[in-house]
Amino acid sequence: MGGAVAAARAGAVAALVRSVGPYGIQTPHTGVMRYEEGVREIPAAALTIEGAELLQRFQDRGVTPVVMLRMEAHTRPDALSRNVIGEIRGRERPEEVVVIGGHVDSWDVGQGAMDDAGGCVVAWEAVRLLHALGLRPRRTVRVVMWTNEENGLRGATVYRDSLGADVANHVLAVESDGGVFAPLGFGLTASDTAFAMAEAVEQLLAPVLEAGPEDRVGVTRGGGGADIGPLMAAGVPGAHLNTVTDRYFWYHHTHGDTVDKLDPRDVARNAAAMAVFAYVVAEMPERLPLGPPAADGE
Amino acid sequence: MGGAVAAARAGAVAALVRSVGPYGIQTPHTGVMRYEEGVREIPAAALTIEGAELLQRFQDRGVTPVVMLRMEAHTRPDALSRNVIGEIRGRERPEEVVVIGGHVDSWDVGQGAMDDAGGCVVAWEAVRLLHALGLRPRRTVRVVMWTNEENGLRGATVYRDSLGADVANHVLAVESDGGVFAPLGFGLTASDTAFAMAEAVEQLLAPVLEAGPEDRVGVTRGGGGADIGPLMAAGVPGAHLNTVTDRYFWYHHTHGDTVDKLDPRDVARNAAAMAVFAYVVAEMPERLPLGPPAADGE
Repeated sequence: MGGAVAAARAGAVAALVRSVGPYGIQTPHTGVMRYEEGVREIPAAALTIEGAELLQRFQDRGVTPVVMLRMEAHTRPDALSRNVIGEIRGRERPEEVVVIGGHVDSWDVGQGAMDDAGGCVVAWEAVRLLHALGLRPRRTVRVVMWTNEENGLRGATVYRDSLGADVANHVLAVESDGGVFAPLGFGLTASDTAFAMAEAVEQLLAPVLEAGPEDRVGVTRGGGGADIGPLMAAGVPGAHLNTVTDRYFWYHHTHGDTVDKLDPRDVARNAAAMAVFAYVVAEMPERLPLGPPAADGE
Repeated sequence: MGGAVAAARAGAVAALVRSVGPYGIQTPHTGVMRYEEGVREIPAAALTIEGAELLQRFQDRGVTPVVMLRMEAHTRPDALSRNVIGEIRGRERPEEVVVIGGHVDSWDVGQGAMDDAGGCVVAWEAVRLLHALGLRPRRTVRVVMWTNEENGLRGATVYRDSLGADVANHVLAVESDGGVFAPLGFGLTASDTAFAMAEAVEQLLAPVLEAGPEDRVGVTRGGGGADIGPLMAAGVPGAHLNTVTDRYFWYHHTHGDTVDKLDPRDVARNAAAMAVFAYVVAEMPERLPLGPPAADGE
């Protein structure tokens, strides 16, 4: 992210970064970069792993390669976009909210199927399932597809700010933004009291969860997400829907992030897990209490 | 291969084939195609798995997509190319030959690192190792990088034809053309007598072979290769250097077939296996006998 600034300071005319994913097949990995006031703005681009290793081989042999950059990247003015929100109003405490969701924006490569259409569909489908089953829990279950996560969390920040003091009525925020692979469970950042209450849902989740390393299966300590970060900073318990993510960064921010990479059965299992977790927390007699602010959504 | 002909007969204006590999990341899989006298020559192209699945989704929903083809493929006139040959002349029976090799041509996508530069390097390196170790076996060990395997086995056919009756002096032909991954051993097509003699090499190979399914580890029944097919058709025992090929068709004939996909340690192990197998068969007191003609190099 800061590569162009650091390179410019060292006198570089451009910065090239090896794709940060663990694997690719000629698929460069894009991502956010920034410039800094007073530092020359030089071109910056990601190379495929294949391309980066080629340059490395040149260097190892003492050959200085000449690279010609032809780039079309540019920054466009901000444009209006919106969070997409739906909900089932709670039957007893509609003002108390369990919010679940993902982000609706994506990078321009691929389709954003993993990052994060899959997460949006899982949250949306969870609420649709509750509705189809005629379930109306004690509290409101809301699905939000936050806008502009990739370029600065604008949707998530506006969402939290627009709540004002009512943010304290959010009892849980759950995000799916790590790839819709086989579900492992929920990584939850919350007070001990809230964690103990949420952990009890684990046995209901078990039938749809994948077997995996014990410390990641079920309701486990620690987790969050970019879009729920602003809520968590206000003390709202926050959780991430954890999945078997071995291949997530094969596709993340590349031309490979297309819908064929999602297994429909895994999408269904994630939606089921999300529905169970959201419903039960929304139905509990007592709400999950707020905790101390979590600084960074983790 | 016959897709364009079959499609034209059915009235198609073009033929698109789903990439035949089991996996890709936006990497179309190329390969040979042919036309037939008297059948209209229509464009034919391979789609990525992602692209083919997109079209499938359209069709499943009753939507007829319009596809615009912009292709640059064309057939150029034949040009001169040559087999590349080196050898260690046998100290007692130089006229008897153990030939090992791969093919030096490749498809225009990628670098042809797996298909089949890796195979060529393994065979070349095996002979270099014998030379560096000062080993001069009873019979000649020859490395051949056959030309034009991909477009009709021209190099392999000329090699065999140029031998004339001397083809009977070839005691073994070994090809590496299945990807230079962890080596499993050699799949050998030969008479029972020749197989029993060659199988004895297995214990010497064991230290460099990968653990794997029992029926593929060591010297096993059945195998061959495109370039050694013409020799095998003349009764020469033929073997393929088998490796753990799970990912071979992730790269084969795609832009992903680049040198970074080869693990240097696996290349070294393959070269060691090839050197041992070639040396011992070339050194045996008695030659491997010819067998019945093998029809198709298998």
